[in-house]
Amino acid sequence: MFGNIAILGVGLIGGSLARALRRAGACRRIMGYGRHETELKKAVSLGVIDDYALDPAHAVARADIVVLAVPLGAMKPLMAAIGSALPPHAILTDVGSAKSSVIADATAAFGLMPERFVPAHPIAGTEQSGVDASFAELFEGRRVILTPLEHTDRAAVEKIRAMWRVAGAVVEEMDALHHDRMLAATSHLPHVVAYSVVNAALQLDPTSAVLRYAGTSFRDVTRVASSDPVMWRDIWLANKDAVLDSVQAFQTQLQALQHAIEQDDGTAIVAILSRAKAARDRLAHEA
Amino acid sequence: MFGNIAILGVGLIGGSLARALRRAGACRRIMGYGRHETELKKAVSLGVIDDYALDPAHAVARADIVVLAVPLGAMKPLMAAIGSALPPHAILTDVGSAKSSVIADATAAFGLMPERFVPAHPIAGTEQSGVDASFAELFEGRRVILTPLEHTDRAAVEKIRAMWRVAGAVVEEMDALHHDRMLAATSHLPHVVAYSVVNAALQLDPTSAVLRYAGTSFRDVTRVASSDPVMWRDIWLANKDAVLDSVQAFQTQLQALQHAIEQDDGTAIVAILSRAKAARDRLAHEA
Repeated sequence: MFGNIAILGVGLIGGSLARALRRAGACRRIMGYGRHETELKKAVSLGVIDDYALDPAHAVARADIVVLAVPLGAMKPLMAAIGSALPPHAILTDVGSAKSSVIADATAAFGLMPERFVPAHPIAGTEQSGVDASFAELFEGRRVILTPLEHTDRAAVEKIRAMWRVAGAVVEEMDALHHDRMLAATSHLPHVVAYSVVNAALQLDPTSAVLRYAGTSFRDVTRVASSDPVMWRDIWLANKDAVLDSVQAFQTQLQALQHAIEQDDGTAIVAILSRAKAARDRLAHEA
Repeated sequence: MFGNIAILGVGLIGGSLARALRRAGACRRIMGYGRHETELKKAVSLGVIDDYALDPAHAVARADIVVLAVPLGAMKPLMAAIGSALPPHAILTDVGSAKSSVIADATAAFGLMPERFVPAHPIAGTEQSGVDASFAELFEGRRVILTPLEHTDRAAVEKIRAMWRVAGAVVEEMDALHHDRMLAATSHLPHVVAYSVVNAALQLDPTSAVLRYAGTSFRDVTRVASSDPVMWRDIWLANKDAVLDSVQAFQTQLQALQHAIEQDDGTAIVAILSRAKAARDRLAHEA
């Protein structure tokens, strides 16, 4: 159905996509590439990929679809490394959490944005990393956003849409810049905040004994602070403007609440919380 | 074992405690008090309480243990209303999330802190409220912190400790002020932050269409923004100094991260995130 797949970066996302496609019998051969041979060997022994190459150009040589599933900071050099080895008919796609930067990197690496490059972002993940954490059901019912450009090949877009549907996802298309602003608010900001809550607790009690008393609220709010630091460094720097705008909006809201607490302004506090609760309750009903 | 119990405020916490004691066959009769008769009738029909009174003085008249389970802002008037009706042998306790304010309220309402008043805080809850949301297992394996004063009756402390053990909790004692500072960092701050993340998303997109793209990170970080606004107004105002100190520490940490992103300082970002991740990973292993 999708022929030979090359998964460049066989981690949580790349590994889960490979498992989902394989489970559906939707591809011929899955070739992996990564920097750590032990991880790639593990991926083979887990049945996630058929084989691997330590040179990305070898990994893509016979591919019909190439999935770039490395951290955003590793995209551009990887694109440069595969450019001359890509079969002419191959479709390129990625799984990056910021889309404008991937388009800019591809434009720089290939000299122009290839017509058969379909930028994509599966909104799915856990706080864990690596092929060990991958599972075929990760994308079931999740959204995948495609951000093709005007000149992107429509047949390539439909092929990538079909691939994500096979993995169980709900696929839609939007403008890359719009995607980046939305994801800053709904994903990149929550990660900034989660790491900062843990560090605030450590600042208040450097022995970290305080964490023995962490209840479910602390655990929920900070769960994603176990995510990979390098991946999040790359996402925030790749989507810097939108992330900083989100942090700014958050600070405005935080300061309004802080001011109301300082002033013992119970009416203002309840108004602020009720607005948030109404929106969050609607989200719970959609979950 | 514990005789007649009066639960003043039959919501998530009060209702769950009643269910746990009843399940263990550890009490004679459970009397409820609340402001909304429909809720109390529901509590009777759910089998959570045996009977109820709309006058708190009636509810406590035959009680061996009186549990104050109302929002912190309602504590002082409730204490004043039951003062003259309390049987001399009755033990008083509460479930408030801030302990210094409860002690100050009791001292004001009773003229002094009663020897048989054992301030207590079960570190348990969900984002839901009301007797409908209560369940007997809520406290299993959770911590309950008692903050008795020097002159608190030790037999009363041991009785309340035994009551929470029956409900499945792990009980410990500490100083009220220490409790309040710890809980500010591990519970009150996460709630401030969760509400502010939702409000930041609404500020960035007043139509709230953006929330359609909320993934698991947004859902986890903001789950507790569905909590009761009045309860949280009361907790923050009751524990104002410690809460504002926590917010200040959080802002320091947030600004450090914001600055590193602005400066494209990847090394600083990874160092900041790695510190948080190490602490959060330890917490995951203890969960």
